[in-house]
Amino acid sequence: MPVGTQGTVKAVPQQLLEDLDVRILLGNTYHLYLRPGHEAIRRLGGLHRFMSWERAILTDSGGFQVFSLSDLRKVTDEGVSFRSHIDGSSHFFSPEHSMEVQIALGSDIAMAFDECTEYPADRARARASLDVTLKWAQRSRDHFEAHKHERPWGERTLEQRTADSGQRSEHQAEKAAVNAEGRTPNLFGIVQGGMFADLRRESAERLVEMDFPGYAIGGLSVGEPRELTREMIATTLPLLPAEKPRYVMGVGYPDEIAEYARMGVDMMDCVLPTRAARHGLLFTSEGRLNIRNRQYAEDQGPADPACNCMVCRRYSRAYLRHLMAAQEPLAAVLNTLHNLAFYLETMRKVREELAEKPVQPQSGS
Amino acid sequence: MPVGTQGTVKAVPQQLLEDLDVRILLGNTYHLYLRPGHEAIRRLGGLHRFMSWERAILTDSGGFQVFSLSDLRKVTDEGVSFRSHIDGSSHFFSPEHSMEVQIALGSDIAMAFDECTEYPADRARARASLDVTLKWAQRSRDHFEAHKHERPWGERTLEQRTADSGQRSEHQAEKAAVNAEGRTPNLFGIVQGGMFADLRRESAERLVEMDFPGYAIGGLSVGEPRELTREMIATTLPLLPAEKPRYVMGVGYPDEIAEYARMGVDMMDCVLPTRAARHGLLFTSEGRLNIRNRQYAEDQGPADPACNCMVCRRYSRAYLRHLMAAQEPLAAVLNTLHNLAFYLETMRKVREELAEKPVQPQSGS
Repeated sequence: MPVGTQGTVKAVPQQLLEDLDVRILLGNTYHLYLRPGHEAIRRLGGLHRFMSWERAILTDSGGFQVFSLSDLRKVTDEGVSFRSHIDGSSHFFSPEHSMEVQIALGSDIAMAFDECTEYPADRARARASLDVTLKWAQRSRDHFEAHKHERPWGERTLEQRTADSGQRSEHQAEKAAVNAEGRTPNLFGIVQGGMFADLRRESAERLVEMDFPGYAIGGLSVGEPRELTREMIATTLPLLPAEKPRYVMGVGYPDEIAEYARMGVDMMDCVLPTRAARHGLLFTSEGRLNIRNRQYAEDQGPADPACNCMVCRRYSRAYLRHLMAAQEPLAAVLNTLHNLAFYLETMRKVREELAEKPVQPQSGS
Repeated sequence: MPVGTQGTVKAVPQQLLEDLDVRILLGNTYHLYLRPGHEAIRRLGGLHRFMSWERAILTDSGGFQVFSLSDLRKVTDEGVSFRSHIDGSSHFFSPEHSMEVQIALGSDIAMAFDECTEYPADRARARASLDVTLKWAQRSRDHFEAHKHERPWGERTLEQRTADSGQRSEHQAEKAAVNAEGRTPNLFGIVQGGMFADLRRESAERLVEMDFPGYAIGGLSVGEPRELTREMIATTLPLLPAEKPRYVMGVGYPDEIAEYARMGVDMMDCVLPTRAARHGLLFTSEGRLNIRNRQYAEDQGPADPACNCMVCRRYSRAYLRHLMAAQEPLAAVLNTLHNLAFYLETMRKVREELAEKPVQPQSGS
């Protein structure tokens, strides 16, 4: 899943995301709550309509950004109080509030409000953090089930909405909302437990008892060595029902996501392809390439000779390098398009491979 | 003509410019000379190939930017010495050098090297400036005619070029170069003369004697009142052959370009639609709209209800306003697309109107 933090995958028009065959985007609850605000998005008919995106949207719980971006956090059993990274204003997020925000956004897949345990964390800290996350998971589920039908499109008919907005009924934003309206919202639970296999096991078992329609493995890719990430995924995956979506949050490099998919992971998200692109780092079949380097100044070849994306079919490394050197906004657009195409193609190949040779269930380590 | 200063119409992928039916772009000689350098672009097969744009490209002479952007200019009859606005390095532009750069870029329409007379300028200053420009026009023409066939694609065949570059022969950049190769390069003369009708007349007559394939009216839109711009255009147009392209440089607002086209102007360029877009200023059938304004925060309507562009069909004012407020790079992409669509549609309507009721030749005022 490409990450569309503030209701946009940075620098890329929605039409080009569709051309890339992006089927689901991640939106960040924390950012959208602060700006433009979930109530505004609710009044505007939900995030699908707001950003004119009819395909699926997953929203995170806001927890991770509250912990990583905001100031003056205070965590209690009740929730987290924090200050906005934009204007310093005071806010409070609880599991109930996170659900309310995600329901207001009209998310197809909402995430339980969790505490992402930092790395390193000792056993006592991981234990305490997990206890909070498990209580919050139950509260998230209870609130979500009670309110999930309060979708942002409300009770008005399509005709009323179209008349209200002054938009033509064939407007793509309106069609996006209508499309989203027909889908059932889901809430996924998030496995935590730090880097302790037994805590991960306990977390997974407790969540499975709560019976979520999908499960995420959180608290990974937070600074731990890659072998540990893999070990935690291998430990946790077999404890989660294989017939439901299993989602590893916040990973990773192209070879990592291919590896995890082969282990049985169904969903992943990462800012890496988009963020790296804006800094001139391109992922290719020949490895990573820093397009700002002088050596590409007169390189007529495409970013990746094996890539058939709209950028590699059209532009040279020399041109992409020039756009970075001249600080042109088109650099971010084209670099992001290529990296997303490369990631999506990586996953397409894995899916093709798995269709021929299905995943062998992993046993815990 | 949209302006593509540094080999890109800021923030817009070439594919979307084609979708907008842009048929000709303006490239800035001064910028491309400094970065990535005209010799680099020549080695890379010309600007069409470099930026992967097979449709027409007009390049300005570099004169205007030398006067408006660079430091420590010194003008002599020979040419202009100046310091780069990027790194302070010293450079010298003469008519011959401007031609050499434009030929290296592979421009379809090159412009004579001129001095853009500032506003206000008294008669003596306008007279002296015009004298320099007329000498430079002849030198530009002489050099261009002697060297115009030294096009950047050189003597190599398509097969050789493709093999050299490691690119597939069906690569769009290569196709752009092949397409440009088949066209004859042109040099346009530029009428100057400040705001003095008799100097404009003298300038036009002298240029027509030199027999250029097209003529521009320069030195307008430099701070003078709009009535004076119109008066100078009305004075000069009838002195230029109606069967050749007549181009007014650096204008203008949508109503201005429509007005000038009705007066008989065939070509115009302006950074206004693209630059204003990046600051959130949208041109619409209802007038100008500053999309950053709070009043659009929950406005579900399209930027322009009468516009059928890819932005107005898909996004709301509320979304466009959010992108600006959140400083998202997509704001520049979408705002620019809309403004260009609005400008192109303005011209399309004028062309349609003129096809039914052709221009009446203007007499000088």
